[in-house]
Amino acid sequence: MVRWWGWGEDEGAITLPEPALALLREELGMDGSESGARVELEEVELPRPGLSEAARRELGPLGLSDEHDARVSHAVGRSYPDLVRIRAGDGSGAPDAVVTPESADHLRAALAACAKAGVAVIPFGGGTSVVGGVEALRGTHSAAISLDLSRLDSLIDLDPVSLTARVEPGVFGPELERLLGMHGVTLGHFPQSFEFSTVGGWVATRSAGQASTGYGRIDELVEAVRCETPSGELATLDVPATAAGPSLRELVVGSEGVLGVITEATLRVRPLPRARHYEAWSFRSFEAGAEAYRALEQTGASPDVARLSDESETRLSMALSSSGSVAERAGRAYLGMRGHRGGCLAFTGFEGTPDDVSRRRGRAAGVLRAHGAVALGQKPGRSWLKGRFAAPYLRDELLDRGVMVETLETATTWSNLHRLYDAVAAALREALTARGTPPAVMCHISHLYPSGASLYYTFIARQEPGAEIEQWRATKTAACDAITANGGTITHHHSVGTDHAPWMEREVGALGLDVLAAAKDRVDPAGIMNPGKIFEGGRTRPPSQPPERRSLRSPPSSA
Amino acid sequence: MVRWWGWGEDEGAITLPEPALALLREELGMDGSESGARVELEEVELPRPGLSEAARRELGPLGLSDEHDARVSHAVGRSYPDLVRIRAGDGSGAPDAVVTPESADHLRAALAACAKAGVAVIPFGGGTSVVGGVEALRGTHSAAISLDLSRLDSLIDLDPVSLTARVEPGVFGPELERLLGMHGVTLGHFPQSFEFSTVGGWVATRSAGQASTGYGRIDELVEAVRCETPSGELATLDVPATAAGPSLRELVVGSEGVLGVITEATLRVRPLPRARHYEAWSFRSFEAGAEAYRALEQTGASPDVARLSDESETRLSMALSSSGSVAERAGRAYLGMRGHRGGCLAFTGFEGTPDDVSRRRGRAAGVLRAHGAVALGQKPGRSWLKGRFAAPYLRDELLDRGVMVETLETATTWSNLHRLYDAVAAALREALTARGTPPAVMCHISHLYPSGASLYYTFIARQEPGAEIEQWRATKTAACDAITANGGTITHHHSVGTDHAPWMEREVGALGLDVLAAAKDRVDPAGIMNPGKIFEGGRTRPPSQPPERRSLRSPPSSA
Repeated sequence: MVRWWGWGEDEGAITLPEPALALLREELGMDGSESGARVELEEVELPRPGLSEAARRELGPLGLSDEHDARVSHAVGRSYPDLVRIRAGDGSGAPDAVVTPESADHLRAALAACAKAGVAVIPFGGGTSVVGGVEALRGTHSAAISLDLSRLDSLIDLDPVSLTARVEPGVFGPELERLLGMHGVTLGHFPQSFEFSTVGGWVATRSAGQASTGYGRIDELVEAVRCETPSGELATLDVPATAAGPSLRELVVGSEGVLGVITEATLRVRPLPRARHYEAWSFRSFEAGAEAYRALEQTGASPDVARLSDESETRLSMALSSSGSVAERAGRAYLGMRGHRGGCLAFTGFEGTPDDVSRRRGRAAGVLRAHGAVALGQKPGRSWLKGRFAAPYLRDELLDRGVMVETLETATTWSNLHRLYDAVAAALREALTARGTPPAVMCHISHLYPSGASLYYTFIARQEPGAEIEQWRATKTAACDAITANGGTITHHHSVGTDHAPWMEREVGALGLDVLAAAKDRVDPAGIMNPGKIFEGGRTRPPSQPPERRSLRSPPSSA
Repeated sequence: MVRWWGWGEDEGAITLPEPALALLREELGMDGSESGARVELEEVELPRPGLSEAARRELGPLGLSDEHDARVSHAVGRSYPDLVRIRAGDGSGAPDAVVTPESADHLRAALAACAKAGVAVIPFGGGTSVVGGVEALRGTHSAAISLDLSRLDSLIDLDPVSLTARVEPGVFGPELERLLGMHGVTLGHFPQSFEFSTVGGWVATRSAGQASTGYGRIDELVEAVRCETPSGELATLDVPATAAGPSLRELVVGSEGVLGVITEATLRVRPLPRARHYEAWSFRSFEAGAEAYRALEQTGASPDVARLSDESETRLSMALSSSGSVAERAGRAYLGMRGHRGGCLAFTGFEGTPDDVSRRRGRAAGVLRAHGAVALGQKPGRSWLKGRFAAPYLRDELLDRGVMVETLETATTWSNLHRLYDAVAAALREALTARGTPPAVMCHISHLYPSGASLYYTFIARQEPGAEIEQWRATKTAACDAITANGGTITHHHSVGTDHAPWMEREVGALGLDVLAAAKDRVDPAGIMNPGKIFEGGRTRPPSQPPERRSLRSPPSSA
C-alpha cells in the first residue's frame, strides 16, 4: 500500500536514531516539543464532487472512481507543501473523480468525453511530482478528473537490433527494469522516485536520474513519442536523428500534460551492465571537488554516477549516519591528517562490461587523485547504491517531528557554478533566518555536463506551526528569485508544475511562453489539459478570465 | 570569388581525367556529345525589382543592394535544380534586393521595416542550401529581400571554463575554426559545405558534420540560442540542461528562418585535438560493414568519423580515383584473396589526445577486425581527410558534361536499415530507368547512433536536355515517397526547405505541422519570414489564398 500521506510504502520506512535526532534539534534550535501530527485518511476533507451526471455516465465505463480513498490518493503529489496539506486533512487539490483507462481506446474515449463535457484532465503516473504537477486545478472548468495511467503498463515491443523499447506510459520503474531485464537490457534511468514513478511521468517532466551523467537524461533516451491530445495524436518518427524542422519530439517531452497524454515512448536501451564499481572519495573542499568533476567531464572520463556533497551536506550526512566505530574514527583521523577535516564527500559509479568499468574507473581515478581526491573505498559506495532511493522516507520521519524539509535544484555553467551556489544558499538562509527559523542548508552536484553541472539543495528548519505553507512559500520564492537572478535554470529535473510557473517567463521570456501557449491552444483549444501547470495563471485562457491561482488552504472556488 | 553558377571558388575546382570520364559515359550510356553550357552572369534573367519606394528608403541605410550581381548570387542555393536553373539563366528565385546589416540593431531595424512594408525576408548565411532553403519566395507579399548575415561574424565571447563560445550567425566555417583555434578549442563541426556555410545556417538547418558521430550534431552542440522574430526576441538560457517545460531551444534549432533570424548561438567547444588517426578499411559487404559499425556504436567504441560506402560507391569511387599503380593492383589482388573482391570501403577517424586516440583506435580496430574488416592503412584515410570538402566541385565538372548528379539522405534504425537502403535505391533506379536515363546509384553510411544510422545517396544519370527539372522532380519524388513509406526520415541533415516540404505531413503528421504553424503564426503573424519553407504551400496563410508552389521555370507571379 502506497502511503497517501507520505513517501512510498510502510515497509520501506527508515527511522533516525535518537542521537541523530538530538543533533538535528541542536542544529535547528528545537526543544523536542514540536509535533507533526497527521489526520486519518477518512478525515481528509475533499471538495464536493463536481462532475456532471452526463460526464459521469460517459466516463463510467472507462474506469471511473470517485470514492474518498481514490480521490485522496490523487489529491497531491509528493512535494513538501503537498504533504503538509494532506497530513493536515486538506484535500482541496483532489480531482472530482479518478479515471483509470485499461486501454488506449478507453484513454481516447475519456479524453473525448472530457473535451465534450468541459472537464479538466490531469494525467497521473506515479503521483510523485514535487512541483505541484498533479494537483487537480480546474482552470475555467467546473470539474476535473485525474487520468490514472497505471493500467497502461506494457512493454509493447523490444527491438534487440536497434536497442530500443516501445513502452506504455504507466509502467513503473521497477517493472520496466524487470521487463527489460528479461531481454538483457536496461534503460539506466534511476530518479530518486524510481520505485514509485512511471515512464510517462519521466518523459512528461524531462526527468533526470542518478545515473544520467552516464546513461543520459530522459530527453536523450526518448527516440520517439506519441501524445494523445484533445485534437488528435502527435506522433514522432522512430528514427535516431532528423533535420526535418523544429523538434516536435522536444515539444512533447517536458510538456507535463498540458498538450495531451503521453501514450507511448520509444526508449533507447543498453545491455545490462555485467559489472558495477561504486566508491567514495573525499575532497578538501567543494571547489576542489567541482574542479575535479569538471576535468572528468571535459576530458571524456566521466563516471555514470557522479555526486559531490558540499561541506555542509558532508558534515550532516556523516553525522546522521555515524556509527561511532573505531574504524570510522580512524578514517576521520586519516582524512584530517590529509587536510580533509571538514572536507567534501563524493561518489563515483561505473557500470558496463568488466573491462570497460575497469578501464574507465582507472582513468577517472587518476584524474580525481590529480585533483587531490582521497579514495574512501567501495564500501561507502555500495552503501550509497543500496540506499539511493530511501532519502524521501526520511522526510516523513522529520515531518512527524515538526521539521520542514525541502529540496530544490538548478543547473548552470561551470564558470557560473559557485556564484549560483552561494546565491541560492544565501537566499535560503536569509529567508528562513528572517522568519526566526534558521535552517541547515546542504547542496550536492549530481549531474555533470561538459559545459556545467546541476546543483541540488536540501534545507531543513523548524516548522512554523500554523504557517507552514507561508514559511515554505517565502523560502521557495527567495530561492527561485536567486536562481533566476544568477544565471540558473528554474529546474534541472523536477519540471515546472505549479510551483515554478511564476518564474517561467524569466526562464524562456514572455514571447517564448506565448509560443508554447500557442502550441497548446492549437491542440487543446478548450484548455482542458492540466490547467495551471507551466503557464502561470492559466495564461492560455481568454484575458477576460481572472488568473488561476494555486490555492493551498481554501477549497477551489468551483467546489 | 564564390562561383555564382556552381560550387565554391575557381581555385578549388577539380577535374576528372579522361579515363574516368570515359568510364562514366560507359556507365550512363552517353556518347560524349552531351553539353552542359551555361550563360554568362549578365545574361541571368531576374524578375523586375518589386520593392516599394518606401521600403527601399527604410532599408537603404541598413545595407541594401539591388544590383544584378548581388541578386543573382542570392537567387539560388546549391542544389542540383538550383544549379540547372541558374546555369540556364533562370534567376526567377532572386530577391528584389539584398540587405546586409552590419549590426544586430540594423538587423532588427530591417526586420521591422519589412514587417511594416509587408516584405518577405529570407535569412541568408552561406547560401549552400541543397533543399531550396534560400529561394526568395514571396508568400502573400509583393516583394522579398535576402537578409545576408555575413557581416555579423564575430566571436562574441569564449568561456574557457565552461568550454562554450558565443558566436554571431554569419561566421563561416573556416573563420570560426580560426577564431576558436586562437583559444585552443574547436567546434568539431565539418559539414561538406564547411568552407562556404555559416554557423547560423548550421543551427537553422539542424546540420550534421562529417565528425558528428564523435562531436555530435549541431543540435547537440548548441547550448543556447537567440532568434529575432517580427514579434521580438526568442532567447534561451545558457545552461547545460533544464527541465523547464518543452524545449524552446529545439524549436528554434531547425526552424530554417520561418520563425525569425538566428542572431546568436552559444556553442559547446572542445580542446583542439592534438592527435588524429584516419584510416581506411575493407569489408566483404555493405551488410558486414553496417554490422561492424553497429557493434562499435552499441559498445561505445565509435570513432569520431565513420563512413561506409556500399559496393556501388566503392567500385565507382575506386575506379574514378584509380592510379593504376603496381601497388594498387597488388592491394586489389590481396583484397580479392581475402574474399573482398567487389567489397566495401570504409573510413574511421579518431581525434583527441595522443593517448586517447591510440586507446580508442585500438579498441575499435579490434571490433572491426572481429567483423571481418581488413585494414587498408592510414594513407587512404589521410587522403580522404584532405579531400573531404571537394566532392561538390565534381558536380560542376559533371554538369558541364550533361550529367545529372544529385544527393539525398535519410536515417533510420539499425533493424530497418537494409529495408530502407534497398527501397530508396530501387526507387531511384526505377524512376530514372523509366525515363530512359538509367542511373548509377551509390550510397554510404556517414553518421552512427546507438539506435541507427544515416544513409547518404549519390546518383548520376544522363541529363534529359530541356527536361532536366522534370527529370529531377520525378526522381526526387520517387525517392521521398520510398523514404516515407519505409520508415526513414525525410532528411537526416539537409533540412526541409522547399524540396522536402511536401513530405513534412508524413514526417510529423498533419497535427504536428499545425502545431509548428501555430508557433510560427505567434511570432510572425504577417508571414514574412521565409515563406514557403518547411510548410508546403504556405500552410500558415489564410485558406482563401491559393497554395504557394515552387516555380522553377517561370518568374514569380508578382514579378
